[in-house]
Amino acid sequence: MKYLITGGLGFIGSNLADRLSKNNRLTIIDNCSTGFIKNLKKNENIKIINANLLNIKKLKKIFRNHSIVFHFAANADIKNGLKNPKKDLEQNAIVTYNVLEAMRYNNIRKIVFTSTAPIYGNTSQFPTKENAPLTYQTSLYGASKLYCEGLISSYCEGYNFKSWIFRFVSVLGPRYSHGHVFDFIKQLDKDNKNLNVLGDGKQKKSYLHVSDCLDAIFLALKKTKKKINIFNLGHNNFINVNKSIKIITKLLNCKPKLKYSGGNKGWVGDLPFVFLDNSKIKKIGWKPKKNIDESIEDTVNWLLKNKWIFKERK
Amino acid sequence: MKYLITGGLGFIGSNLADRLSKNNRLTIIDNCSTGFIKNLKKNENIKIINANLLNIKKLKKIFRNHSIVFHFAANADIKNGLKNPKKDLEQNAIVTYNVLEAMRYNNIRKIVFTSTAPIYGNTSQFPTKENAPLTYQTSLYGASKLYCEGLISSYCEGYNFKSWIFRFVSVLGPRYSHGHVFDFIKQLDKDNKNLNVLGDGKQKKSYLHVSDCLDAIFLALKKTKKKINIFNLGHNNFINVNKSIKIITKLLNCKPKLKYSGGNKGWVGDLPFVFLDNSKIKKIGWKPKKNIDESIEDTVNWLLKNKWIFKERK
Repeated sequence: MKYLITGGLGFIGSNLADRLSKNNRLTIIDNCSTGFIKNLKKNENIKIINANLLNIKKLKKIFRNHSIVFHFAANADIKNGLKNPKKDLEQNAIVTYNVLEAMRYNNIRKIVFTSTAPIYGNTSQFPTKENAPLTYQTSLYGASKLYCEGLISSYCEGYNFKSWIFRFVSVLGPRYSHGHVFDFIKQLDKDNKNLNVLGDGKQKKSYLHVSDCLDAIFLALKKTKKKINIFNLGHNNFINVNKSIKIITKLLNCKPKLKYSGGNKGWVGDLPFVFLDNSKIKKIGWKPKKNIDESIEDTVNWLLKNKWIFKERK
Repeated sequence: MKYLITGGLGFIGSNLADRLSKNNRLTIIDNCSTGFIKNLKKNENIKIINANLLNIKKLKKIFRNHSIVFHFAANADIKNGLKNPKKDLEQNAIVTYNVLEAMRYNNIRKIVFTSTAPIYGNTSQFPTKENAPLTYQTSLYGASKLYCEGLISSYCEGYNFKSWIFRFVSVLGPRYSHGHVFDFIKQLDKDNKNLNVLGDGKQKKSYLHVSDCLDAIFLALKKTKKKINIFNLGHNNFINVNKSIKIITKLLNCKPKLKYSGGNKGWVGDLPFVFLDNSKIKKIGWKPKKNIDESIEDTVNWLLKNKWIFKERK
């Protein structure tokens, strides 16, 4: 079996590549827009191709002779969706269509896809189950990811594909490069006396460590064989932003003055509460090994050792 | 207020244009791919522009000086989605993005959108409510329409748009030009001794007359003022394909031999049962005036008087 990872130089993709490449040969496609070549440990089992996933002709060639695709490439910048609405359309919707077509062209029928909690849109069910009541989308990112899921399941129905779709909460851990922990550490690295916080600090969110996340993916691939396998991936609980700030500032040994931008949302379209029901993935034998506090600590420690990343992300 | 209708030469769009143009000036954009210029009654209030909705530059110009957009243009050929998967992506997803961007560019903030029962995918809730449990998509058409809804609601959240989204069952009535009644009449017009039927004839579907459909849209526009207004539009009941055949053959005074293609679905990804809960739209004072039998009869009679349409649709 030969694996292919789109976005394999990114945060989650590169952690996946490390694990997979221990015993397997694999190909990574990445355009280095948010991924970094230095994310990857040197490994002869990995072939890296710098390619634009909007170029379907090129994809059809690259995909040849692979048997399973981990489609992890995406625009994950939910916060800035409204600044450039074309980005989620292109990088999520159209790219996923291209990936599916390149697979179909090469007779590859297995896809693993990283979906996301925001596909539940304006939900009022907490913790949110995989079959939560349908509601409306609040972000271009969530809307595009739900479309990707729909494309994938339609390919399963129509072209006999098999899919594993994982709806993630925010993921933390080594190589993490966007989100509130990143923003806070970056700010405090420059000035540890002030910290700008989006919203009122009371947003409640669940987080998962990337290692727990990968454990769940490998377990599901091993244990579930339906045509379409959809799983929430989140922790058993959640924390609010203020609590997260306490963990971070304790680690950094500082007491910044907090300046809140106000309102109960971090940005337009933000979901002030994200908490997924994880009982479906637990039923097949998974449980998270790291708690949220440990995940934040692990992330902070990695960021402090890898400050080069603050220069790469403006 | 100046209205703009995309797909205004199509089945539902042209019926809408007839009504609106009685007292209003309006612009129709249509590429005549499935719409017909002869669908429209001559009317000085209507300006028709033949344009490709994929051309966003052109749209931005055309949209100028309008205040509400009825986005009715779509690829509605759910059955043949798998033959050309790019069509739903382009004609539904990308076109809807273009329409929204052309609106934003021209500061138009009101959109009326024709969504569809297949967005409920593999649902097991019947009748299906607007907030039915989320499940997976079975067709590229349904997936693309749900994405259009997501784009629209994200524009409402992010750019202060206001939307009215209607999830239709199959619509019947004058100018109807695809679907099972069309297929049957076309076949029987050539040979009234044989009739090929997709599936086992037991698929149960709900239908709505286009006049009832438009009544509901105008009522909702008048009575609901939320940022995002979503309504199912369907009849109080449903019929199966065999019953529909009986109504049709009685009208045509023939007794064809029925040849079933077999299986409980008409095509790959077909939903063998479509029945929407219409209590939300009923609550604001709507009810259908025509029953399903009358809608089928009305459609058959129109088709028999307009056989030119069989030549246009291969």
